[in-house]
Amino acid sequence: MSLPDGKGLAAALPDAAEGAVADEPAPSVTADHAPSVPPRLPPALRGGIVLVGLPGAGKSSIGRRLAARLALPFLDSDHEIEAAAGLPVTEIFARYGEAHFRDGEHRVIARILNGPPAVLATGGGAFTDARTRAAIRASGATAVWLRCELPMLARRVSGREHRPMFVGQDAAEVLNRLARARHPFYAEADIVVNCTDETPEITTDHVQAALERHVPPARLAVQLAERSYEVVTGPGLLARAGGLMAPVLPAPRVVVVADATVAALHGATLRTALADAGIELRAEHAVRPGEASKSMAVLEEVLDAILGAGIDRKTAVVALGGGVVGDLAGFAAAVAMRGLPFVQVPTTLLAQVDSSVGGKTGVNLRAGKNLAGAFHQPLMVLADTEVLGTLPPRELRAGWGEVAKHGLLQGPLWDWCESNGPAAVAGDQAALRHAVLESCRLKAAVVAADEREEAPEGGRALLNLGHTFGHAIEAECGYDGSLLHGEGVAIGLVLAAKLSAALGYCDPALPGRVERHLHAIGLPASVAELNRRFSAATLLNRMRKDKKVRDGALRFVLLRAPGEVFTAGDVPAAAVEQLLREEGCTA
Amino acid sequence: MSLPDGKGLAAALPDAAEGAVADEPAPSVTADHAPSVPPRLPPALRGGIVLVGLPGAGKSSIGRRLAARLALPFLDSDHEIEAAAGLPVTEIFARYGEAHFRDGEHRVIARILNGPPAVLATGGGAFTDARTRAAIRASGATAVWLRCELPMLARRVSGREHRPMFVGQDAAEVLNRLARARHPFYAEADIVVNCTDETPEITTDHVQAALERHVPPARLAVQLAERSYEVVTGPGLLARAGGLMAPVLPAPRVVVVADATVAALHGATLRTALADAGIELRAEHAVRPGEASKSMAVLEEVLDAILGAGIDRKTAVVALGGGVVGDLAGFAAAVAMRGLPFVQVPTTLLAQVDSSVGGKTGVNLRAGKNLAGAFHQPLMVLADTEVLGTLPPRELRAGWGEVAKHGLLQGPLWDWCESNGPAAVAGDQAALRHAVLESCRLKAAVVAADEREEAPEGGRALLNLGHTFGHAIEAECGYDGSLLHGEGVAIGLVLAAKLSAALGYCDPALPGRVERHLHAIGLPASVAELNRRFSAATLLNRMRKDKKVRDGALRFVLLRAPGEVFTAGDVPAAAVEQLLREEGCTA
Repeated sequence: MSLPDGKGLAAALPDAAEGAVADEPAPSVTADHAPSVPPRLPPALRGGIVLVGLPGAGKSSIGRRLAARLALPFLDSDHEIEAAAGLPVTEIFARYGEAHFRDGEHRVIARILNGPPAVLATGGGAFTDARTRAAIRASGATAVWLRCELPMLARRVSGREHRPMFVGQDAAEVLNRLARARHPFYAEADIVVNCTDETPEITTDHVQAALERHVPPARLAVQLAERSYEVVTGPGLLARAGGLMAPVLPAPRVVVVADATVAALHGATLRTALADAGIELRAEHAVRPGEASKSMAVLEEVLDAILGAGIDRKTAVVALGGGVVGDLAGFAAAVAMRGLPFVQVPTTLLAQVDSSVGGKTGVNLRAGKNLAGAFHQPLMVLADTEVLGTLPPRELRAGWGEVAKHGLLQGPLWDWCESNGPAAVAGDQAALRHAVLESCRLKAAVVAADEREEAPEGGRALLNLGHTFGHAIEAECGYDGSLLHGEGVAIGLVLAAKLSAALGYCDPALPGRVERHLHAIGLPASVAELNRRFSAATLLNRMRKDKKVRDGALRFVLLRAPGEVFTAGDVPAAAVEQLLREEGCTA
Repeated sequence: MSLPDGKGLAAALPDAAEGAVADEPAPSVTADHAPSVPPRLPPALRGGIVLVGLPGAGKSSIGRRLAARLALPFLDSDHEIEAAAGLPVTEIFARYGEAHFRDGEHRVIARILNGPPAVLATGGGAFTDARTRAAIRASGATAVWLRCELPMLARRVSGREHRPMFVGQDAAEVLNRLARARHPFYAEADIVVNCTDETPEITTDHVQAALERHVPPARLAVQLAERSYEVVTGPGLLARAGGLMAPVLPAPRVVVVADATVAALHGATLRTALADAGIELRAEHAVRPGEASKSMAVLEEVLDAILGAGIDRKTAVVALGGGVVGDLAGFAAAVAMRGLPFVQVPTTLLAQVDSSVGGKTGVNLRAGKNLAGAFHQPLMVLADTEVLGTLPPRELRAGWGEVAKHGLLQGPLWDWCESNGPAAVAGDQAALRHAVLESCRLKAAVVAADEREEAPEGGRALLNLGHTFGHAIEAECGYDGSLLHGEGVAIGLVLAAKLSAALGYCDPALPGRVERHLHAIGLPASVAELNRRFSAATLLNRMRKDKKVRDGALRFVLLRAPGEVFTAGDVPAAAVEQLLREEGCTA
């Protein structure tokens, strides 16, 4: 499109096609009066702010207020287009058609994004253009969707003669049509603010607060032999789940398999997020919380629910819950129609840092845990750290057992854990995001090197650090909830460090460091802290039956230092027994 | 080894190390007196005959008689070695050791195999040498194992001073040790003859009969993306199953999952064959015959049986039975410990020509057939055509429905079916072998081009020739056994040909040819032959629900000629309805 070069009409035509709610006086700070004070933006927002939403959502009205508060210039993309074209937006549409308009709009927005940070109110259709969305993402700007219920918008826009698309039309019908077409794109915005009929000042408060607490998601590409997928983590992702997963779904259709407790807490958020993104929820199946659901019988129930929903091979299975649901729904996805696409939405710290990466899915059999299953990699893992706030605190802390393990495996992550672990378990979103991201990075690297667990030494077996002891202690406690898996791992990590020190492999100070960190998190760090007596012989016997044992020799993952671990197949039983006796176990 | 060039001792030292049972006079025809009459061998045996077995089995005694009857020279490898070396075998062993002896033995046997056809009795250890076995296989000679029970052998060899390995030893103990070491290799022979204490003449009768009816197995390499596997077919393979599968098993350990009826008929043969080859049978699990066993509940039973047997990831699952057991055990193997190796031993014609190639495994769900499953390729498919002799004749004929379909898809195979089908269903082993081999070749080629069933046109969908009609007719009959799947396919093939002719795609004479062939096999070829009234509208309705239907248009696989088939997505419902009415269906 070649826009005629001219100016003049632009400034005289506020909200030409659609834009701000115009029934309030505009605040005084606009693009024409760029502020001289420095921007008061948090670092994450230095790329500027882009407001998107349907006509009447208040993009201009809220945008002007927000700009004033943040001491940023305010720009309206429609005004800028009119200024560049010397024609009202309606006229450009009429003369050149929508495709040409979007072309010009994309170029004008890209130019604005290249300039200094600003608050930019976009025309309602701008964010539906893939190039424009890509330009916004690439610029580092934060996109905020002002999400409103349609009846409220209908009241706002009706009778506004300056909105040509509503002239002579039923406003509710037009909005319905627009919402169906545009919500799926708005759902890709970085932040969603649900707006009600409160005053613009209050809505602006909400937007400002959302921006201030915004922690942008971190992304990790997990490389597989044949393809790759992303782990996305950070707060507030569940509310944006539809927009985040839409680009990787083969078709906009899903079945959700959820832990019943998690469904009650977060199901509505996920449903809304899917609906916003135009993703059809074909069925929702809740499974009882707990390990007992990892059975062939429950697998059949899940399969019946999935297949009973009249799905096709492009319908994805979304697993919403902890490790049990991830393993169960992942396995169901692996075998339903011989393989359906699959998205993990882990809601426990344990699942976020551990079971959602690696592609292992499965259920338990009479003969043991996870004995029936499949390798089935997800299309995406969405780990919303905010959801962890609804987790019982003890479960959150137990999940940290695996984070600490990843720290010890990785090295620098261990130092980070010592400094930031307590803040993370207290709910610091940036710290949780870092813990999840780095745990997944470590695990993904180990798994990529040994995808099918075939390496004779090292490889995936290293992930068992602390688990030989941990599994034995867990088994002794009888899986009755008195000791959580992550708590067993925590004690196991200290014992692995003590064994490494006793055998002369590591600094004798390391076990104390591990113990202090786990105590700082609120985790047990020794069997003596458990209200139960353990026999060294019984624990040794359990360890001998561990699947990592080969030819009767005890195998352990040992430490030379954080970041330097190895599998040892020659640990003398006597050394282990002595350690356990020193820890207060009976003979 | 450099054997001293000399002669003399050789002829004077019959059976030096081990060999023929010497308590009977040797027949007169030996290598020294080559016969002038032409060999009376069937063509398949023109490569000569190699006898293998333990000391005392009668390799020389039976070999001499057999050579006389077949008018072939008789050779004894030990004699030939002694002749070449100018030393008794015992002396060569004593002076140079076993490795050097096997070297020379390999060269002497290779030289003999390069010469004119003969009956060759080998030293008992010859067949344990991989190079010697390979040379025998490559030469086209037929290896016959004279298999004897150990107590009989012990009686035969005890007190024979000319067998040095037994001097001063307990014969039973020596034989036990030899059997454990050598049976796994003997099990790789082409023919196994079980010998008892009958006279040598009668044993020779048995060997001769086995040679005369011997149809060597045919092999087909099925190429997969990441590896390939072989389909081996022909008569008598079950008795040799251990020897045939041993080379592809990751470890000599299996679990057998079998149809209960087939287990009763053929389980013992398979067990002996596995034991002969030194393959440990960790567990045997029988499932009730019939489609009802393809359920999640039976899958769990099978998994419990497999995992309860204390297996590891190298233990293979062997599926012995028809399509139900193949699908069920294959799926169990796919998910047990997230994937165990797997061998198909299909025992129905339908399974041999169809379900054992393609890698699809699975069970039924409430929502439909085969809705839960996995792609899991076998290590090998062993299709013993002799086993088909115990199949109810109607089931054998029904299996031919799929063979005829493969013929129509392939072209020349169709002409072959017309000429050889009746002999095959009457039990002709060579014809059955050809039908299985060519069916698997056709199916493997189609599957290789479209492994995951993703081709929009043609591809794996072509295998549905006759199935759109067939499935509808089967469904109407209610899966109550009144119409077998292959019978529905047979009728469907005729209808597909008639529809192709009606739409002007093929020679109007083709439907008649298809009908005549199916009648010659003893299969129904039209709905009029079924004792039931069909409604055209109901059948059309069923076809509309077929999974091959897209967007409501009827999809059929149609024929231009045998070997020229295509998927048609635009068949007018009226044409199908008219055809069904002409076939005698009501409105």
